[in-house]
Amino acid sequence: MGRLSTLFAPERVAVIGATDSEGSVGRAITSNLLESFDGEVIAVNPYKESALGLHCYDEITAVESPETVDVAVVVVPPDVAVDSIEAAGAAGIKNVVVITAGFGETGSEGAARERELRAAAQKYDLNLVGPNSLGVMSTPKGLNATFGNEMATEGDISFMSQSGAFVTAVLDWAAERDVGFKDIVSLGNKAILDEGDFIAEWGEDPETDVILGYLEDISDGTEFIRTAREVTQDTPIVLVKSGRTDAGATAAASHTGAMAGSERAYEAGLEQAGTVRVESVQELFDYAQILSGQPLPDGEEIAIVTNAGGPGVMTTDAVGDSDLSLAEFEDATLDRLGEMMPDEANIYNPVDIIGDAPAERFEIALETVLEDDNVSMAVVVACPTAVLSFEELAEVVVEKQREAGVPIATTLMGGKSVGAGQDVLSEAGIPNYFDPARAVDSLDVLNEYRGIRDREFEDPATFDVDRERAREILESASRRDTNRLGVEAMELLDAYGIPTPRGDVVTTPGDAEAIAEEIGDDVVMKIVSPDILHKSDIGGVEVGVSPEDVRDTFEDLVVRARNYQRDATVLGVQVQEMVDLDSGTETILGMNRDPQFGPLLLFGLGGIFVEVLEDNTVRVAPVSEPEAREMLDDIDSAPLLRGARGREPVDEDALVETVQRLSQLVTDFPAIVELDINPLVATPDGVQAVDLRLTLDQDEL
Amino acid sequence: MGRLSTLFAPERVAVIGATDSEGSVGRAITSNLLESFDGEVIAVNPYKESALGLHCYDEITAVESPETVDVAVVVVPPDVAVDSIEAAGAAGIKNVVVITAGFGETGSEGAARERELRAAAQKYDLNLVGPNSLGVMSTPKGLNATFGNEMATEGDISFMSQSGAFVTAVLDWAAERDVGFKDIVSLGNKAILDEGDFIAEWGEDPETDVILGYLEDISDGTEFIRTAREVTQDTPIVLVKSGRTDAGATAAASHTGAMAGSERAYEAGLEQAGTVRVESVQELFDYAQILSGQPLPDGEEIAIVTNAGGPGVMTTDAVGDSDLSLAEFEDATLDRLGEMMPDEANIYNPVDIIGDAPAERFEIALETVLEDDNVSMAVVVACPTAVLSFEELAEVVVEKQREAGVPIATTLMGGKSVGAGQDVLSEAGIPNYFDPARAVDSLDVLNEYRGIRDREFEDPATFDVDRERAREILESASRRDTNRLGVEAMELLDAYGIPTPRGDVVTTPGDAEAIAEEIGDDVVMKIVSPDILHKSDIGGVEVGVSPEDVRDTFEDLVVRARNYQRDATVLGVQVQEMVDLDSGTETILGMNRDPQFGPLLLFGLGGIFVEVLEDNTVRVAPVSEPEAREMLDDIDSAPLLRGARGREPVDEDALVETVQRLSQLVTDFPAIVELDINPLVATPDGVQAVDLRLTLDQDEL
Repeated sequence: MGRLSTLFAPERVAVIGATDSEGSVGRAITSNLLESFDGEVIAVNPYKESALGLHCYDEITAVESPETVDVAVVVVPPDVAVDSIEAAGAAGIKNVVVITAGFGETGSEGAARERELRAAAQKYDLNLVGPNSLGVMSTPKGLNATFGNEMATEGDISFMSQSGAFVTAVLDWAAERDVGFKDIVSLGNKAILDEGDFIAEWGEDPETDVILGYLEDISDGTEFIRTAREVTQDTPIVLVKSGRTDAGATAAASHTGAMAGSERAYEAGLEQAGTVRVESVQELFDYAQILSGQPLPDGEEIAIVTNAGGPGVMTTDAVGDSDLSLAEFEDATLDRLGEMMPDEANIYNPVDIIGDAPAERFEIALETVLEDDNVSMAVVVACPTAVLSFEELAEVVVEKQREAGVPIATTLMGGKSVGAGQDVLSEAGIPNYFDPARAVDSLDVLNEYRGIRDREFEDPATFDVDRERAREILESASRRDTNRLGVEAMELLDAYGIPTPRGDVVTTPGDAEAIAEEIGDDVVMKIVSPDILHKSDIGGVEVGVSPEDVRDTFEDLVVRARNYQRDATVLGVQVQEMVDLDSGTETILGMNRDPQFGPLLLFGLGGIFVEVLEDNTVRVAPVSEPEAREMLDDIDSAPLLRGARGREPVDEDALVETVQRLSQLVTDFPAIVELDINPLVATPDGVQAVDLRLTLDQDEL
Repeated sequence: MGRLSTLFAPERVAVIGATDSEGSVGRAITSNLLESFDGEVIAVNPYKESALGLHCYDEITAVESPETVDVAVVVVPPDVAVDSIEAAGAAGIKNVVVITAGFGETGSEGAARERELRAAAQKYDLNLVGPNSLGVMSTPKGLNATFGNEMATEGDISFMSQSGAFVTAVLDWAAERDVGFKDIVSLGNKAILDEGDFIAEWGEDPETDVILGYLEDISDGTEFIRTAREVTQDTPIVLVKSGRTDAGATAAASHTGAMAGSERAYEAGLEQAGTVRVESVQELFDYAQILSGQPLPDGEEIAIVTNAGGPGVMTTDAVGDSDLSLAEFEDATLDRLGEMMPDEANIYNPVDIIGDAPAERFEIALETVLEDDNVSMAVVVACPTAVLSFEELAEVVVEKQREAGVPIATTLMGGKSVGAGQDVLSEAGIPNYFDPARAVDSLDVLNEYRGIRDREFEDPATFDVDRERAREILESASRRDTNRLGVEAMELLDAYGIPTPRGDVVTTPGDAEAIAEEIGDDVVMKIVSPDILHKSDIGGVEVGVSPEDVRDTFEDLVVRARNYQRDATVLGVQVQEMVDLDSGTETILGMNRDPQFGPLLLFGLGGIFVEVLEDNTVRVAPVSEPEAREMLDDIDSAPLLRGARGREPVDEDALVETVQRLSQLVTDFPAIVELDINPLVATPDGVQAVDLRLTLDQDEL
């Protein structure tokens, strides 16, 4: 059990601010606790003699052995909440649930109060939930330390929500269905405990089989990824992260006051973390139910058994839309179906056992396909007919599912006929939907989670680099009092083993000539100045300069820079080996920093691909070798790297290694807040970083 | 009323094959008719004296005034079904519903029988439904001429389905909900009446407000587009067309035996027809309900009113995913909300009136935002709280919706608390969902339909072309006994006013020289042979040939062709003006024929865009000017035509006109089964068709 085990399974719970005043939150919590909690409830309130039959202590220290109180629930007014927390901490209580609102969500005064609260909690190393929380629940001990109207029924789903209202909605909804929960926590403002803490706790909890979350932000993306990767090896995590769209992000910021990370960072980070991200409430619970009720498949092949052709086609379309594939039956299966089914039946997948099928025919068909080694899961789709009892069918499905041990979802396609069958299925953890697309989508998620569970999270490689040299380059740049660097920092890439064309930045025509002679061929020359962003526009770039013209070109470039801006800082002129762009493919490799997830790498093909078609992909750094390789697979234009239209494929391994090396660089130096290698030219023989721009945060050096 | 009015509102219905045998289809139909039909039911069965209390006539002609029987329902065995239909036709009956199965869906014998059935129906010009149909229903007269278990309740949705089982499922489902229907028809094999006939009928039916369909194919795409375009000006058509995916299309073909058109043709055709296409059963009914229950919005701006921040964010995300936009409130609205709502409320959209809001606060907030001219629709999202009655809230929403006359959808986010509120809403035609995304999606569809209704369907332009010359070119090609044509047919494009580079196909070196002199510049020369597909590969193309080299090049090209294939048919050598590809953008304009929708035009950018990125778009021809222009908008790479990355924009009008001219050409000549102009070079000054390939169906000439 994790460090929060006593939060969810306490023996003694104190309500600080307990009261019996009608309509108050303090009363609701006290009353909810008294209703079902299998333990001692203690009331603390200096202004009351008693509340709901409980003696009220004046303060927490007045309680007998206060250090053995497992949880203090704080429902006092905001101006005294921090004092109450301080008192609980001083008394030796470890878990505090702060219901009180009026903190960070309400403006600058509240934000200051939340800082005090955090300081108090840190002083006593408290496991603090909230503030501004609806509370916590845990069904095994009947713990309802919330002010909601409903207690959850027991189950194996644990649920955290950054919206308290959403918790009440879900409980009300679940009360009507057979959806049970282990623990529920309303995260509130997450001053101390956040989503990462709860997934860590539930990852160690044998009674939690599925973790669900509604989140509006993630407090610490890097930590979240680390924790979730471990937890999802055993326990699936299904999340709604709202504020996905620009409009939603603005609404979320105004709701929680949280600083929004970019949606692309969340998308990449949640995927790298191994979570199943969903977009709607319906998906959240559809997927929770099947993950909790059904085993994982051992493959992606699905069998469809139906008594109706049309719905069978719809189901097949849903399979076509998913990552599942229609199972191809073995000969033995076809033989048996051919023997046992009527002539008019379709024995190929989707198996249509036609409209006059009673439950017994479903039984034979289902048993037959489930015995087929090519079948990893099944969906049963039935329309109401005079000869079919949905209840009998449900019993058949439950039995066959148990025997075969493979996941099944059903579509009993009807309304009033469905009731009894639905109950049988739901009792057995088999999800049933009117719409076959939802049944297939749910099975698809089981398969997705199988992929996550089987995924090997490799550690990022650590290359042998010259970190000290890199630090010197960054520091010398910062001494120049600029935060924008260009090609003059190319050596930074050299230090991390990212290939660059031969050449250097020089400050005299003679040095330029010397470099050109060393290169021994025509060169590219570029003015180097932090004040000139678009070098080409002012004639600051000369391509194909022959060795004898290098001196004159040096002078020309400097003159042009001065003409453009008299006081421009000119760091020198870059003299660089020519890179044959025709034989290579221009790519872009970049990075910026996300407030939640840190360094975010971007990769795409250069020119129109990134600028016009927006064909690029991102990952949170540091990336492992498989993650770097995935980035190449992700882009639509990937075939152009791989020999489309008769070109020679580029050296993918070199590209993948460069992505990893950049990942290491930006992880090592938080001072690099933005970086673009554009172009990074990929050829069949390797890569070359031709141009570089980066932005520094000097304070981080 | 349309020509099928007596099919749905008959006075007299005869069941040919009526019986009282337990479990028989004939009994089910007779019994269903007797149950609720407000008219006369007549039984015909030579082997029975009576059935369910009805006297059985030996044959339809024995019935008194058989010509006044409005509908004959045929449930006899397949081998005598055609005779029964023939008899009904001879007796003067106009509407025949053939329940009997065993026709086209069962193999070659059945297909032959279906041909006989069709011939009989055509002989008497019958309105024939089926065969292999579940039957028809119409609620105003209580007509249930089906063998299903349920009768629909009255409503304004008319529904057609190519799956009988799906009809039974929908009826069973609707019986549990407040979903009513006007007419329902199970289309069966569509031997005579098909989807086009029913949408035409329902388009004229004042009692049908929404048309729903489940289709696996469309019998006549061109006719369907024509009819649907008119109908959707008044009545929305919402369709599931299954067999969308490859797997689904295969399953559909095995289910109905219908020859599948391409999914891309369906996608384009259904969109051009103005239908709302949906992918799932859930969407089908969600959208039907809101289209039937709510008015259309006059804009796309939505207001969100909620008592819960988190669900408000989720709703905002759903708006971000949709084509709707969050309304920006007028100052008066913000002033009033600021005055009337608590301080903690968020008065900007999404309006969060916070957790302690009773129904009255919802009322004020909703009334205020609905009075705002920037608000075209609203969604109300409520979580259960101690102070809010969902029933009162529902009454408020119904009243405010009526007063404002704008569409509203709701999310009462709960389960057991929702019941009474749900009933109030549903009674008033306001859709309610647990998931706010579904509420927003439904409103989005209202907005989509508003766009369809407002769309002006322009007729395709008819350009002044030389159709006779085009015919001659195609006929002369067909005399050469080939069905594949290349550049030798470029004149075909000239005849239809599609610009081509100057030049011609010549058969002597002298003629080649003459053409080159006329062009007065370097030329491109290509061997012209139907036997040589990849001309470049055999050295059959020479670019930049100077006038003095033209003669020699002619000889070289012919020799290379002979070397490649001794007996190759060489039609000559094309001598063509050089087209400066650097100043233009290569596009592809093509066409192939779809079995259901006819000519399908394809447009995209050339090279990697079509080949690697598959960035192209299709439309069913003939296309109007706006449709041709849409094709340019559709592709991701469109910015490259419009001056991305500093290029001069190409002449879009010339491109649009070329698409229309090709549309006219392929519509005029069904003999052209495939055609590709690749490249069609677009420049700032116009377009030029540089290369051409086409395939002829000689029988169509």
